[in-house]
Amino acid sequence: MKVVVIMSGGLDSTVLLHRTVAFSDLEVYGLSFDYGQRHRKELEFARYWGQKLCVDWKLLNISFMSQIADKSSLTGDLKMPHTHYSHESQKVTVVPNRNMVMLAIAVAWAENLEAPIVFYGAHLNDRSVYPDCKPEFVEAVSLAATKGTLTKVRVEAPFVDKYKADLVALGIQLGVDFSNTWSCYEGQKRPCLECATCLERTEAFTKNNCQDPLLTNEEWLHALEKLERSEKDVT
Amino acid sequence: MKVVVIMSGGLDSTVLLHRTVAFSDLEVYGLSFDYGQRHRKELEFARYWGQKLCVDWKLLNISFMSQIADKSSLTGDLKMPHTHYSHESQKVTVVPNRNMVMLAIAVAWAENLEAPIVFYGAHLNDRSVYPDCKPEFVEAVSLAATKGTLTKVRVEAPFVDKYKADLVALGIQLGVDFSNTWSCYEGQKRPCLECATCLERTEAFTKNNCQDPLLTNEEWLHALEKLERSEKDVT
Repeated sequence: MKVVVIMSGGLDSTVLLHRTVAFSDLEVYGLSFDYGQRHRKELEFARYWGQKLCVDWKLLNISFMSQIADKSSLTGDLKMPHTHYSHESQKVTVVPNRNMVMLAIAVAWAENLEAPIVFYGAHLNDRSVYPDCKPEFVEAVSLAATKGTLTKVRVEAPFVDKYKADLVALGIQLGVDFSNTWSCYEGQKRPCLECATCLERTEAFTKNNCQDPLLTNEEWLHALEKLERSEKDVT
Repeated sequence: MKVVVIMSGGLDSTVLLHRTVAFSDLEVYGLSFDYGQRHRKELEFARYWGQKLCVDWKLLNISFMSQIADKSSLTGDLKMPHTHYSHESQKVTVVPNRNMVMLAIAVAWAENLEAPIVFYGAHLNDRSVYPDCKPEFVEAVSLAATKGTLTKVRVEAPFVDKYKADLVALGIQLGVDFSNTWSCYEGQKRPCLECATCLERTEAFTKNNCQDPLLTNEEWLHALEKLERSEKDVT
């Protein structure tokens, strides 16, 4: 059976991809998006995994999104907030309806391939900030996909009730090489260690009692410091 | 209140646009898509109406769709069938999940504008061929949009239970200049008069006892002949 996996090159969707290819009866088609994100470095890793593990991998340029969505710090000129996801300030990282756009396009490809499932990596940590990562959104968008296609494509987000730490645990089980994944929202050569997604990533590894293999020992120590400081700021 | 209207430059969405601007309390934002359709001539009319009637009008290029959807005669090299919509052969004109992609993008713009409604012009004639024109699809995609956005954007298709002839009747009431609309699926300078959308358009005007103002008198007589012949072919 063919399936489409939306993959960003980030930790979550890379674990999702490994989980999907682990089902040996699935032919996996990978789909990534260039939407003008600052952190386009993630796309290098999307390409790496797409070419390594997928039957076919495509990178689509949907940077026209910046013409209609100028309010996000992920794509516009707004400053990236350096706090936890739970913080109100993270609202500026919302790209309006981004997941529905990506999912609709992935469903179009699935329909063309006659692939009945599209997987994407929404998880529980995202839920407080991003409405399009909630289970009720996944359910509704899946129904729309099923009703709108002849293949009756459905959308599945198997991690929607899992925390990022659970995904790290699953990735360890599946042998994921996390050094080939990228999370930082800033567009630098190395992770900034203090944006929400860096903090979240560091926390997920600490909960699994291991070091993030993307980071040098020195960076890891910095990351732990930043995490500790941010937790003090929240409390 | 702000609203977004998806407009193709075709008859249906031009009537929809006129219906929407007739509500004087609405600020109308028009959105059109270049998806590599053969009949891009329709976009000239989309631009005409967008600039004439909308607060803002945008044309987005989503021709990347051809990378993932090569099976449609609207965008690919397949021959355009010259029969009625009801005919099985019309399946080749389906662009996979096209409406969901356009709607998801329109909802993204609506979210950015804080506009609570996106209108699109799906109608009853389309239903037999295009799954993404059915009421159950509209309902599901609207729910997905509401769940996926902070503005709780909903999708409305006010013509979903109307025939194209009803839209011509409404357009006449609203004073729509139909000579500035385009329906033909073929990419010629003048309508071919025998593709499904030409036949449907001719039929809709005959049901209103009037001539299509887009056509010369001579073209109109040809159109009537083609319609009569196609009806004989179906029976």
